[in-house]
Amino acid sequence: MPAVYEPVPLPPLKDLTDDNITENTIIVNNQSSSPRLRYLFARLVTHLHDFARETRLSSEEWDAAIQFLTATGQICTDTRQEFILLSDVLGLSCLVDVMNHPKPAGATNGTVLGPFHTHDALEYEQGESICSEGKGEPCLVRITVKDTQGRPVVGVTVDIWETDDTGHYDTQYADRAGPDCRGVLVSDAEGVIVFKAIRPVPYPIPHDGPVGGLLEKLGRHPYRPSHMHFKFDKPGYDELVTSLYIRGDPYETTDAVFGVKSSLILDLAKIEDAAVAKEHGLSTDDWLLEYNFVLVTDEEAKELKVKNAEKALKKLGVTATVVDGLPIDALD
Amino acid sequence: MPAVYEPVPLPPLKDLTDDNITENTIIVNNQSSSPRLRYLFARLVTHLHDFARETRLSSEEWDAAIQFLTATGQICTDTRQEFILLSDVLGLSCLVDVMNHPKPAGATNGTVLGPFHTHDALEYEQGESICSEGKGEPCLVRITVKDTQGRPVVGVTVDIWETDDTGHYDTQYADRAGPDCRGVLVSDAEGVIVFKAIRPVPYPIPHDGPVGGLLEKLGRHPYRPSHMHFKFDKPGYDELVTSLYIRGDPYETTDAVFGVKSSLILDLAKIEDAAVAKEHGLSTDDWLLEYNFVLVTDEEAKELKVKNAEKALKKLGVTATVVDGLPIDALD
Repeated sequence: MPAVYEPVPLPPLKDLTDDNITENTIIVNNQSSSPRLRYLFARLVTHLHDFARETRLSSEEWDAAIQFLTATGQICTDTRQEFILLSDVLGLSCLVDVMNHPKPAGATNGTVLGPFHTHDALEYEQGESICSEGKGEPCLVRITVKDTQGRPVVGVTVDIWETDDTGHYDTQYADRAGPDCRGVLVSDAEGVIVFKAIRPVPYPIPHDGPVGGLLEKLGRHPYRPSHMHFKFDKPGYDELVTSLYIRGDPYETTDAVFGVKSSLILDLAKIEDAAVAKEHGLSTDDWLLEYNFVLVTDEEAKELKVKNAEKALKKLGVTATVVDGLPIDALD
Repeated sequence: MPAVYEPVPLPPLKDLTDDNITENTIIVNNQSSSPRLRYLFARLVTHLHDFARETRLSSEEWDAAIQFLTATGQICTDTRQEFILLSDVLGLSCLVDVMNHPKPAGATNGTVLGPFHTHDALEYEQGESICSEGKGEPCLVRITVKDTQGRPVVGVTVDIWETDDTGHYDTQYADRAGPDCRGVLVSDAEGVIVFKAIRPVPYPIPHDGPVGGLLEKLGRHPYRPSHMHFKFDKPGYDELVTSLYIRGDPYETTDAVFGVKSSLILDLAKIEDAAVAKEHGLSTDDWLLEYNFVLVTDEEAKELKVKNAEKALKKLGVTATVVDGLPIDALD
């Protein structure tokens, strides 16, 4: 398959049947000048049609799907992303994250971004609170950021977000005045970040919309175990999107969005140390969350991603040309 | 797989990887009390995940897909259905129609409904015009409706819709006052329907939205060959959704929505017969469209649908239980 665009001779698109529609749709889409787009749409059309063929999808079911997708798009706003939620509950977000951000042994696992990250979180100094007063049980957070060689990573931008103690993100309030229970901090010379937040609580994903209706039909609950989101960014390092989970949560083993990993579950402690409590204006009985994050470099991530892709594609029997870990053949 | 709902023992959903996410998502969805829904979602998740795995879908591509689907939902209104358009250009609508409305030899083929059918078309008497003045070149339409035994089908409700001569349906005008270039008639004792309309013209599907953007990226044109839509309804007969196409149209072999079938292409003639022209207040030089439609009964359609389903599923190697032509096993 040449990488340069060459006009595709089209067959006459008449008398399309359930047997020839897939092949013909792929040929028509093969006019794209992008070999990657050609490959994506060849596989998309194949799977979409095979799904309909294998299920003998009825007209009523097709119509229900059209209505569902339409409603899912229509409920989206600047602060609500129902399609990400759909991707999350179908396990797609988990899969895409694992493939795109592979972790060598010892590195911190990633997990789903979810639909609640915003770009307007305020920057905080070390020791400050990312939550306004009265949002929940105070929790001192003390984390370190290191590389796979155990060296501190200095100057990492860390984006943190969580719900208040009613289980709602700031963006879920119609009268949101500004960001709350979210913030951005930068790691110090020892790769340390310290800030005040609140103890995470379990909560249901927004389930008053199409995705909530789907979960109900599927007999599934909409809950996520208590967690705090983290996103780490520094040039030269693979972006780490992850969360920390509190051990013993009732939804620890049945997360509605498939986000839990054992290595991200921790035991929440009490501060106990009076000097530490005093330094942060907290009580010894307040919560303490400690965790050591390990980032991978762009090089480490890319190398592993290409290796994993080649291994997986070989296992799947995909014979397409692979460039930088991405298959690009249109017709296989 | 029992048809009665039984609680599913869930595995702990922790440490999900690209290898085990599919199996686990299917088990969780398997809590539904509907065996058909369980089967649909088992196949949906399998294909969705296989698509991502085979393409090594990148985070950027996933994000582009989320944005595309959101925009597709958001542009939908009471009179614009962008998801049907998406289904049309990906060949899915064609496939679903063929499977759900199979035709024995001699019966009129169906084709895509498209997004422009409305439920507010007015009823007309035989001989009336479904188009207001000045909408295009006058065309007398004379059709018959028969069953597969050649007997006239009396009292069929026929819904007809087409664009004006600028290639726009009434619903595409912001100032639409009411239905135009669409109408409903009922077949007479001989199964005949006669009405006045206009000569169909080719037109592009709405391509100012996400689907138009997609076609451009795929190197595809958005045109449909000139056609007139028909929908036939009568209790006891399988609904026929179809269109008639004018031979020689520049887009006859490259319909953007895969709707053309050779048996639905006809030669448009001139009226010529002065008596006929006079009877309908037209000129002998005006257009004449004639076609003989053949409907199938519900029984004929259902029998063929089940037979086709069993044949196709056997060919695909699907071992699920099949009820009325629909597979219902959840785990295969």
